Amino acid sequence: MSTDPALYPSERLAQVADAVRAADLDVLLLTPGPDLRYVTGYDAKQLERLTCLVVPARREAFLVVPALELKAAQASPAGALSLEIVTWEETGHPFGLIKKAVGDPREIALSDRMWALHALQFRDAFPGARQHLASTVLSPLRMRKSAAEIAALAAAGEAIDRVHANVPRWLKTGLTERQVGAKIAEAIIAEGHVQVDFVIVGSGPNAASPHHEVSDRVIQDGDVVVVDIGGTMPSGYCSDCTRTYAMGHAPDDFTKYYEVLHTAQEAATRSVRPGVTAESVDRAARELIADAGYGQWFIHRTGHGIGLESHEDPYIVAGNTIPLEAGMAFSIEPGIYPGPHGARIEDIVVCADPAATGSGVQLMNNAPRDLVIV
Amino acid sequence: MSTDPALYPSERLAQVADAVRAADLDVLLLTPGPDLRYVTGYDAKQLERLTCLVVPARREAFLVVPALELKAAQASPAGALSLEIVTWEETGHPFGLIKKAVGDPREIALSDRMWALHALQFRDAFPGARQHLASTVLSPLRMRKSAAEIAALAAAGEAIDRVHANVPRWLKTGLTERQVGAKIAEAIIAEGHVQVDFVIVGSGPNAASPHHEVSDRVIQDGDVVVVDIGGTMPSGYCSDCTRTYAMGHAPDDFTKYYEVLHTAQEAATRSVRPGVTAESVDRAARELIADAGYGQWFIHRTGHGIGLESHEDPYIVAGNTIPLEAGMAFSIEPGIYPGPHGARIEDIVVCADPAATGSGVQLMNNAPRDLVIV
Repeated sequence: MSTDPALYPSERLAQVADAVRAADLDVLLLTPGPDLRYVTGYDAKQLERLTCLVVPARREAFLVVPALELKAAQASPAGALSLEIVTWEETGHPFGLIKKAVGDPREIALSDRMWALHALQFRDAFPGARQHLASTVLSPLRMRKSAAEIAALAAAGEAIDRVHANVPRWLKTGLTERQVGAKIAEAIIAEGHVQVDFVIVGSGPNAASPHHEVSDRVIQDGDVVVVDIGGTMPSGYCSDCTRTYAMGHAPDDFTKYYEVLHTAQEAATRSVRPGVTAESVDRAARELIADAGYGQWFIHRTGHGIGLESHEDPYIVAGNTIPLEAGMAFSIEPGIYPGPHGARIEDIVVCADPAATGSGVQLMNNAPRDLVIV
Repeated sequence: MSTDPALYPSERLAQVADAVRAADLDVLLLTPGPDLRYVTGYDAKQLERLTCLVVPARREAFLVVPALELKAAQASPAGALSLEIVTWEETGHPFGLIKKAVGDPREIALSDRMWALHALQFRDAFPGARQHLASTVLSPLRMRKSAAEIAALAAAGEAIDRVHANVPRWLKTGLTERQVGAKIAEAIIAEGHVQVDFVIVGSGPNAASPHHEVSDRVIQDGDVVVVDIGGTMPSGYCSDCTRTYAMGHAPDDFTKYYEVLHTAQEAATRSVRPGVTAESVDRAARELIADAGYGQWFIHRTGHGIGLESHEDPYIVAGNTIPLEAGMAFSIEPGIYPGPHGARIEDIVVCADPAATGSGVQLMNNAPRDLVIV
């Protein structure tokens, strides 16, 4: 939907072509999804008919689209690029058409989210080629957000913060998680997103299931409720924020570990600055939680990158030794899930240049992190 | 969301295992998506962490899930199957875990919508194996809808028919396509869907772009507006219905071809019965449109199968010689797009046994097909 040239600059296609050559790839093949949108701005639907941006190392890029989508492609930001659009008819052979144009490549890269349906057809079209993931060349670019991308993430963060500000109005004992979730989903759209990506309302024992969504469980007095919500903005950029609420009062054992979690989440956030590794941010949260005796209940990584995808590089996880750079955006979301309740606190943050901004980290979410008693 | 055992019968897993053996496959690998939901009822999110149903030919099936999703998987319909659930920790190696369990398969099948991200990791885990598409074994099963699936499609059809019944209230000159589309999207949810799959509001020249979505174009008096909408019901089954509207009055040349289209859509519908080929239904619509002189403007196939996906087998297209059988569900949606306007009429139909139902075809959509002047 966004055609903001600051967000989707027309020179990006040439940068990507340079990256294809630098990686010694012969051709990059992007079907609809975040990779295609990043490179061209074209937000096409992923369907069985092949739409594919072809970026060969040794000739101009072109976009292959089904004939019935030609007008949609032309009307998209891709139509404004100097990019040939090649159509195929309903009973035509788009893979053959691409083969004819690019010859016999040896090293090809496929968008990470390309369906096997298409990946296997490319395998058959190019039997001598080795398939790689597009993230090999795109992840280094997509991870380093521009000022316009950071502004888009900030707008997404403000939108989801406004939803969280109203969550206490909808969280009521006697309602089911599903009923509360429906109100939240409406609000995600009303606050400016074009798509609801996920709505987790984990009440009572469901608060201890990190990827619970919603259920017909009725919310009760004394419940802890984990609310983890996110959506996609018209810009294409995503929000993701978790807050934990308590209905009426919180159990004593819960209050104790919530404070540990809160401290750990802040410590991990404060540890972010250029040059520290992704895994060190995970460690900053994990050590505090482990030292307090809750290590076994922190059963997931501390965070994930975010941008045109809710989950993307860099992952904030043990083993990821990538040094953070200014512009990298990711979640910091430790959780403790001992049952019969659990808690998580999540913000999106962007690694920043202290010389420019006075801090190594910018917060995209600013809803209060104290336990909210509803 | 649905745990209706009529819709997702527990014996389906054994049927699929039989189909794996009959196809001489060594193992079937299903990541989240319609295939996984069809086989287990588990409506998991497709994410970078591997969730995978493993159906080996020569041992029991098992479900691999990230540890943090164990509770969600157990709470899903998959938890009620006699299916081992195997977890992997955040820094673990799920592909290695699967390799350990299934050894050295030669012929493996991947869900058609599996991301390349995972397909290439399976390639590396099983370097000696040939990858096939899961549709090889699942499409013959998924194409033949059970009575419960047909009931689910009928409920989806009724829900989207109710939306179309209200479209004339929201289609107003002076509003943009996007504004009208937002109202329709709300109504898709309000009428019982859990997800909006697509909202096409193609007004004026955009009516001639079959896969247009919405734009900021202001709807004007005398415009033709193609409204093609669909969503997913709590059952997992999809709706999809197109009607064409005219604002105030319709251009004369438009009225002429709309009648041709209407006749062609009805003729294709009437041609459906067990034993006729998929392509013959396409031909039934195409010949009438071509004979009337509009053949060059009917630039897409006549239809697509529908079920847990908006688009699935069987495709109603020249070259698809599959004979239709009772229970096959698909769209019949010819269109004529000469510009500066266009039209499409679409219903979902199910091929039926005339001996049992008195007709070779059941209609899932029943909104009037006459041009609606708003």
